[in-house]
Amino acid sequence: MSMQEMLRIGDDDGRSDALERELKEKLRLRGDASPAKCTRQEQRWRSDHGIVDARERFVQAYGRLRDDLVGDDSCELTDEARRWLAQMIDYNVPGGKLNRGLSVIDSYLLLKQGSEVTEDDFFLACVLGWCVEWFQACALLLDDIMDDSHTRRDQICWYRRPEVGLRGINDGIILKCHILIMIKKYFREKPYFLDILEIWSEIALQTSLGQMLDLISTHTGADDLAKYSIEGYRRIVKYKTAYYSFYLPVANALLLSGAKLEDFSGLKDILIEMGIYFQIQDDYLDCFADPNTIGKIGTDIEDHKCSWLIVQALGHADNNQIEVLHRNYGKKDSSSVSEVKRTYAALDLKDIFSEFERRCYNHLVTSIEAQKDHAAREILISFLKKIHQRKK
Amino acid sequence: MSMQEMLRIGDDDGRSDALERELKEKLRLRGDASPAKCTRQEQRWRSDHGIVDARERFVQAYGRLRDDLVGDDSCELTDEARRWLAQMIDYNVPGGKLNRGLSVIDSYLLLKQGSEVTEDDFFLACVLGWCVEWFQACALLLDDIMDDSHTRRDQICWYRRPEVGLRGINDGIILKCHILIMIKKYFREKPYFLDILEIWSEIALQTSLGQMLDLISTHTGADDLAKYSIEGYRRIVKYKTAYYSFYLPVANALLLSGAKLEDFSGLKDILIEMGIYFQIQDDYLDCFADPNTIGKIGTDIEDHKCSWLIVQALGHADNNQIEVLHRNYGKKDSSSVSEVKRTYAALDLKDIFSEFERRCYNHLVTSIEAQKDHAAREILISFLKKIHQRKK
Repeated sequence: MSMQEMLRIGDDDGRSDALERELKEKLRLRGDASPAKCTRQEQRWRSDHGIVDARERFVQAYGRLRDDLVGDDSCELTDEARRWLAQMIDYNVPGGKLNRGLSVIDSYLLLKQGSEVTEDDFFLACVLGWCVEWFQACALLLDDIMDDSHTRRDQICWYRRPEVGLRGINDGIILKCHILIMIKKYFREKPYFLDILEIWSEIALQTSLGQMLDLISTHTGADDLAKYSIEGYRRIVKYKTAYYSFYLPVANALLLSGAKLEDFSGLKDILIEMGIYFQIQDDYLDCFADPNTIGKIGTDIEDHKCSWLIVQALGHADNNQIEVLHRNYGKKDSSSVSEVKRTYAALDLKDIFSEFERRCYNHLVTSIEAQKDHAAREILISFLKKIHQRKK
Repeated sequence: MSMQEMLRIGDDDGRSDALERELKEKLRLRGDASPAKCTRQEQRWRSDHGIVDARERFVQAYGRLRDDLVGDDSCELTDEARRWLAQMIDYNVPGGKLNRGLSVIDSYLLLKQGSEVTEDDFFLACVLGWCVEWFQACALLLDDIMDDSHTRRDQICWYRRPEVGLRGINDGIILKCHILIMIKKYFREKPYFLDILEIWSEIALQTSLGQMLDLISTHTGADDLAKYSIEGYRRIVKYKTAYYSFYLPVANALLLSGAKLEDFSGLKDILIEMGIYFQIQDDYLDCFADPNTIGKIGTDIEDHKCSWLIVQALGHADNNQIEVLHRNYGKKDSSSVSEVKRTYAALDLKDIFSEFERRCYNHLVTSIEAQKDHAAREILISFLKKIHQRKK
């Protein structure tokens, strides 16, 4: 559909309704956390914690936030511009698993156990949850451009649509601006407003600096593959992914519940550790998962990424295998990619990953058990359940 | 110079000194506001207002801010990452005319006439001035990628350096993050902190929405050139340029001086009007100025931009000329560009521009004279002097 066609859509109310339905479907169908997929035990746990319909209520809040932003009058947007903006948000923000956003809600409800959570409180948790999803949408949109990716969440990448192209960069910037606008609108009068601003500005910087570390490492590694190390890998992943995907949602929930972040440093450390584990899974799935399951085609080998797999491979390979990796890693042609994958197979990387996952899980469980705060333990357990042995 | 070479630079202290000198030279040489170029009258005026060495002091503050950001420990950057970050900031942030940043200082000093301005106060004005320059650097860096530009400020565009490419998008994001970090660091305890945050988040959104309006208009116009109108043009320019280039510096100076923004709505309206005038000049210079003078090669015609020139041309052309414009506007080949330029010449667009400039100037002078506040009048005059009949 060309931009012209998209802009014409608004003239046809029936068509708008159809788009609205499509969006609802998209929001309903995604995610491995939907009630329908829960085990009985999981359902009972959710019911006990009053979060049976948390996902549904979270999804409902999306429409309100999107409409507010599209209707915002700080810029005299034309009707066609408002339609374009709504489409851009709908295309990029929902449609993922919503795990990061829902984590804000889940963590907040666990922190408020025993005390009442009003409609208004719940909505505020939804706002912060959607802010995390907006942040993620901006990061993915821009990463896809930088990585020359093709698909994301089972659809063509936004910037690859013919009417968008590199001008999609500005759409990423708009999504980033929206976050501050939402936070200001709903939290300006709250006692923890400055703390919220601080955590957001700090983690936004850390995430972009983590990306920078990734870029430098990819270059240095392209110069000499042997420079990839597990310490370098962990540093990149901690800043690029773990802070915003794992700590940011919980930090928001903590502030919303009236807690002080400095009282929860143990919780933070374990969340960062989980974030690193999550990214290692991501790297594993990029190479070994079915693209239909994860909604994208992995290109880490072609892109010369400092992936956990190449770091492990280099650590376990003999001289011949190292030579094969050096010769083929970071090449776009499929025979080079196959050579790398063959070496991964010969090195039993699947087993090495399973063994890593087992140890990591046990270590996390021990660390969680050592946490004194009951809610902190429960938050960590809910995260661990979501990510352990995930397939997408 | 490859990324590898750049990263090695830090090992050689002599080379670092050379880079430092080069940067100082860059900061010293640019800008049409340097004291050396002032008329006697201008020098006397500057001296009367205590801003003889304002530019020099502003430039000095840059090094401190950059070093703070590079040394920031919220991310465990490696030494090579810190060198890369410093290079990226030095390449993109200074090197322009610094008009926007200096406007914060100039406006602040005019607002504080008669009362003392301490070293600390002056430094705070410098911080906000550099925040505007950081914002501008981010916008230019990303715009150059979106517009496929080649040169900027007499050097190759950042993203065109072979070691950067599209990953330069992340550098733009880092620069944007830096702004909030600087504001938080220096203004968190100030009574006007929330107002500063509000004006920054609002204008950042308006600027990106202005860019979106520009994008939509370019598409609609590519579909049918006749859709370009002066109203649409003014709306785009107001949001894309005028808010951040003209109102943002003054709004920051007002807040720093303890004023309330709502008391200066007349000042705001005139600044926005000047911003539109400034962009019209920019469009004119894109086509008619010497690239050596403006530091970049204009590509508005090739890029099918909704430029003031094409809007005027369409308004003055006969049917044959309109046909020529429709056939050649937005084409990359030099003969099409020449056809458009020939039509511009036949329509006497240079004269139409001179006439517009004369009327606009007179209208601005009348509006300025009607301002009741003395400082507001002086701020507006200082802006008008900087931009009237500018050649670059």
